[in-house]
Amino acid sequence: MNVDGKKYRTIWLAADGASVEIIDQTKFPYAFEIVKLHTMEDAAHAIRVMQVRGAPLIGATAAYGVALAMRADPSDASLHAACSALLETRPTAVNLHWALDLARKSLLQVAPENRAAAAYTLAADICDEDIAINMAIGMHGMELIAEIARTKREGEPVNILTHCNAGWLATVDWGTATAPIYMCHEGGIPVHVWVDETRPRNQGAFLTAWELGHHGVPHTVIVDNAGGHLMQHGEVDMVIVGTDRTTATGDVCNKIGTYLKALAAKDCGVPFYVALPSPTIDFSLSDGVREIPIEERGGAEVSRITGKTDSGGVETISIVAEGSPVGNPAFDVTPARLVSGLITERGVLAANRKSIAEAFPERVKISA
Amino acid sequence: MNVDGKKYRTIWLAADGASVEIIDQTKFPYAFEIVKLHTMEDAAHAIRVMQVRGAPLIGATAAYGVALAMRADPSDASLHAACSALLETRPTAVNLHWALDLARKSLLQVAPENRAAAAYTLAADICDEDIAINMAIGMHGMELIAEIARTKREGEPVNILTHCNAGWLATVDWGTATAPIYMCHEGGIPVHVWVDETRPRNQGAFLTAWELGHHGVPHTVIVDNAGGHLMQHGEVDMVIVGTDRTTATGDVCNKIGTYLKALAAKDCGVPFYVALPSPTIDFSLSDGVREIPIEERGGAEVSRITGKTDSGGVETISIVAEGSPVGNPAFDVTPARLVSGLITERGVLAANRKSIAEAFPERVKISA
Repeated sequence: MNVDGKKYRTIWLAADGASVEIIDQTKFPYAFEIVKLHTMEDAAHAIRVMQVRGAPLIGATAAYGVALAMRADPSDASLHAACSALLETRPTAVNLHWALDLARKSLLQVAPENRAAAAYTLAADICDEDIAINMAIGMHGMELIAEIARTKREGEPVNILTHCNAGWLATVDWGTATAPIYMCHEGGIPVHVWVDETRPRNQGAFLTAWELGHHGVPHTVIVDNAGGHLMQHGEVDMVIVGTDRTTATGDVCNKIGTYLKALAAKDCGVPFYVALPSPTIDFSLSDGVREIPIEERGGAEVSRITGKTDSGGVETISIVAEGSPVGNPAFDVTPARLVSGLITERGVLAANRKSIAEAFPERVKISA
Repeated sequence: MNVDGKKYRTIWLAADGASVEIIDQTKFPYAFEIVKLHTMEDAAHAIRVMQVRGAPLIGATAAYGVALAMRADPSDASLHAACSALLETRPTAVNLHWALDLARKSLLQVAPENRAAAAYTLAADICDEDIAINMAIGMHGMELIAEIARTKREGEPVNILTHCNAGWLATVDWGTATAPIYMCHEGGIPVHVWVDETRPRNQGAFLTAWELGHHGVPHTVIVDNAGGHLMQHGEVDMVIVGTDRTTATGDVCNKIGTYLKALAAKDCGVPFYVALPSPTIDFSLSDGVREIPIEERGGAEVSRITGKTDSGGVETISIVAEGSPVGNPAFDVTPARLVSGLITERGVLAANRKSIAEAFPERVKISA
């Protein structure tokens, strides 16, 4: 999407045709810096220190990491070593696994002298496929927003609440939850986004607000506590969030706090949509609350926060009474009964086993 | 309550029998400092800059402010001037109004030469009455907790979630939502408190965590987003919050985000209680969501935060993407249908017009 009028993706092949460029997301929202990856190790480092984040972007960066390794040494040994090194950077990331498996299997079929070219093509394909999926999500979601826009007075925006960052910065471009928003904005359907701060890591206030602001989409940052009140008073027309993992029955595991917004939406009659690329559906799961283990992360994410001082520096401060223990569950599960619909690349589905299975029959067979 | 083993109230007559001491709450949670109020102006300043906060404590401080004024000059003119000056400090605070009205009316009946003594007595009475109300709330709430404790294994704590600070620091002593917790802790019923951080002003992480920690009550600070997840997984046995204003029908206006916790409690079958001194009931209101205006506060409360740096200093930093607009509604309304009960000084009431009217018949007559 745009950064102050100039088009960007989160990852792209540099002008030299060999190295790869990314936006350093650890610098957000204080600075916009582009980093050049020259080697596989550079790519591994970028994933490890979270210069890149978000499942699709991590997968794409890993694929480019393999390409950089093949350019330096296209041997089988080098391929295996690159895949192992890249996998170790964030062992639980599903897309990382998937991208590296795909790279290893397909490149082993290719003669070493052609592997570098094949690896670059594969990485570019992974990026293009992510964009195609997100654009499809965007079009389907845009229809939902357009329907609400038709009930509004001329020029009055559709108010959309989102939680965390399922934006273009977490993907190669467009984002998932944000894709319908950007498409409406481009297409002249006025939208305004309520951006949940998203404690403890503040991805809303840091990333979503940054990307909406730099693309020119009207938005307002609010604390996570405020959404229910806004919904009670008709200030939210719909909710769109992303998801990290979705069950075959439509339960949605997303950033901690999503469940609270879904409850408020239900209570206030506000439609609650989840935007997701189908790879996040896990057909082996049927009860999200019971079956999805929730990561408990370090307390320092809650008790310490980094921001910009008035003198322009960046400082980390403590914001919990000294000595108080801190709990930090990172995700929660929103039961399907609270979800108005799943916006996928194949259309908007009801959040139940039948609709999901009908839309992705090939996936059901594989996991059955 | 205790601060590291020593008993404190939030306001008390100094050893000289004339000046008044308070805990400077603007220094929390970084420092524990006692401030001496020598004059009415000192008291007004303490209220204005929020060295004291919470409705009951503001009322008590104003009453002592009048006493300090009467000590300096017990004339009618001085009494009127003191009441006006103190009322201006926070014009919308209901308890401030009430305490100053009471002081003015009762002291005008007293001869000037006796006014100082009468004013000190009145202030002490206001403090004692607040404590008596909170202790009664504490006893009634303790019974609710004890009932849950009986369903637990020996030594297993009752897990109570609270939002914001309705603790002893907001009152003269005991607090409202915390009174049942402190009474259980004193009485040997094991409790553990989930402390909501309470963005944007972080009263949970700054004040509630501080007071529970210094009194020795087991607790864990969590982000406001986490409570729903904990309730889904049986980690919360009950919720107890305070309230700023309660309708005759049992709707509860409290710190922003309370409504989201009430929804999650309902969805997960967790009892949701509101502790309140009866003066917070407004018998003129019957629909909280429609009738209670919600204060929209400055965006800087959301976009800037103050905390302790690693080098021991105190620093304020910005934590929202630059240029992004910020919304900051300060309270929300939890409809009575989500409230399991109101813990008042006269017992635990159902959150409906009939129960409330039966418990406070004299208030209904006055407002009818």
